[in-house]
Amino acid sequence: MPIREAGADDWPRIWPFWHRIVAAGETYTWDPDTTEEAARALWMSPAKRVYVVEDETGDLVASAYLTPNYGGPGADIANAGFMVDPDRGGRGFGRALAGHILAAATAQGYRAMVFNAVVETNPAVQLWTSFGFTILGTVPDAFAHPRHGRVGLHIMYKAL
Amino acid sequence: MPIREAGADDWPRIWPFWHRIVAAGETYTWDPDTTEEAARALWMSPAKRVYVVEDETGDLVASAYLTPNYGGPGADIANAGFMVDPDRGGRGFGRALAGHILAAATAQGYRAMVFNAVVETNPAVQLWTSFGFTILGTVPDAFAHPRHGRVGLHIMYKAL
Repeated sequence: MPIREAGADDWPRIWPFWHRIVAAGETYTWDPDTTEEAARALWMSPAKRVYVVEDETGDLVASAYLTPNYGGPGADIANAGFMVDPDRGGRGFGRALAGHILAAATAQGYRAMVFNAVVETNPAVQLWTSFGFTILGTVPDAFAHPRHGRVGLHIMYKAL
Repeated sequence: MPIREAGADDWPRIWPFWHRIVAAGETYTWDPDTTEEAARALWMSPAKRVYVVEDETGDLVASAYLTPNYGGPGADIANAGFMVDPDRGGRGFGRALAGHILAAATAQGYRAMVFNAVVETNPAVQLWTSFGFTILGTVPDAFAHPRHGRVGLHIMYKAL
């Protein structure tokens, strides 16, 4: 499946599933009411490299960003965020994109990748574990999940 | 010692020690070359509440910010940052400011406070521990310290 860096023109095809995922309030620590303008500023920030996946029909089905997790003396630790269109889950797009982003981070000289806030009920925890990420720690009861109540936020880490 | 919320007029008195601390590259994951304009945008951001400490002569000797550490479903977890003028260290300004900010965070309804990146060689680790913070985990070798080489970044946590 083609994975490539995103251009500004890709945003209108990212926004529908971005909005759906953030509005659901189950996986991201962003305001569920985030406007399209604010979402674009978050996801397509000049500080981030953004990637997209297209399926065999050319539909844009997933996106990720890669960016330094810290500045200055910590700038060679990466952070990334991933979204797969919920209507296109279970077809391996997330796993393929994860592998691509880890390879890109390595190629760009990052020493490790850190996720600061992985909701502990997010099935992606298993995906990251399968890629060798470990849970460094968990902020207890930090996230108000609409179905599970208060759940923890994992800090996950992988050396590159 | 008077501790109060900062106004925009306080920034010129914060910047000299802000710059000195960040330029030293030992405690903050910000670019040591951060310009004054960028520093002001970081520290005095509208998303942050900023506090300052004045000594008995009216000199501004320390500052802190208080802000949500996450957005949306995680917005009731606080984050804070602290800077004490290095020329005024050891006189209890940091400890007094820390107590003030923890009380302010509690009063503002935060459930907990998280520090995402405490350089493990920073003496402030002991200060936070004395206030009841625990180390949830450590990102190994994440910070290039100018004297100690690569050191870890602690994620520290305290329930409020």
